[in-house]
Amino acid sequence: MADDRLTERELQAWRTSIRMLELLRTRLEQQLQAGSGLSFADYTVLSLLSDAPDGRMRVYELGKAANWEKSRLHHQLKRMGDRGLVDRERCGSRGVDAVLTTTGWAAIEEAAPSHAREVRHLFVNRLSPEQLDQFAELADIVLEHLETGP
Amino acid sequence: MADDRLTERELQAWRTSIRMLELLRTRLEQQLQAGSGLSFADYTVLSLLSDAPDGRMRVYELGKAANWEKSRLHHQLKRMGDRGLVDRERCGSRGVDAVLTTTGWAAIEEAAPSHAREVRHLFVNRLSPEQLDQFAELADIVLEHLETGP
Repeated sequence: MADDRLTERELQAWRTSIRMLELLRTRLEQQLQAGSGLSFADYTVLSLLSDAPDGRMRVYELGKAANWEKSRLHHQLKRMGDRGLVDRERCGSRGVDAVLTTTGWAAIEEAAPSHAREVRHLFVNRLSPEQLDQFAELADIVLEHLETGP
Repeated sequence: MADDRLTERELQAWRTSIRMLELLRTRLEQQLQAGSGLSFADYTVLSLLSDAPDGRMRVYELGKAANWEKSRLHHQLKRMGDRGLVDRERCGSRGVDAVLTTTGWAAIEEAAPSHAREVRHLFVNRLSPEQLDQFAELADIVLEHLETGP
């Protein structure tokens, strides 16, 4: 077990990384909430659906894309359904689609520009184009393992 | 406003980065929850207090270290107080300290090794030492701006 302990250097690197992530996420969530009353999770769903053909995805695919477990996704879609942002439609004998409503389209169209501005301000513009590529490459290495994990 | 839009390359870099960060956080939260019934927020508080002299910090300093707003911190400490993990003690005429209880110490001591193992498995060991340093340097650049922000 002693082998698994983090060295001082690793611990420092980890703490910086996770602190950055947490703070970035908090700030983005605050901006979304204040600007358009959306949570980060709401925005994730709206954004994924708006990128899909006809604003429509299998609920199963949406869950994979958002990395959410079934029950979290179910509650999220239920809440967004209650607010008129998405519909769920049975599709064939087994599948269920999540579909952006007109209200959902309006919400993402309203929220997207200021969210992009905040992403640019807090993250993209802090790094040079080369640094941004570097960050994304490293993130991709970690991500690849996370996505193939259990 | 058009200037703020993200280019395809920037968007790709952003999406990879945020997806990695979100998935990493989810997996760590699942491991904590399953292993010791702690949330990521619980662990953050226990970890910060256990690093402080006598397991004690001003609530105000704890909030700054965790990057939480007052109300979130208040609710978090209330819940942890109800579970016997922390005490809040008035200190002088104005300050309030958060203090690890014996139960709190036991909880962090029990949770820390497997959490460190998971951090190593999911993040630290995926990158070479040089890549880890690189990642932390880039995260630090972004973090510095986030911490001086409003």
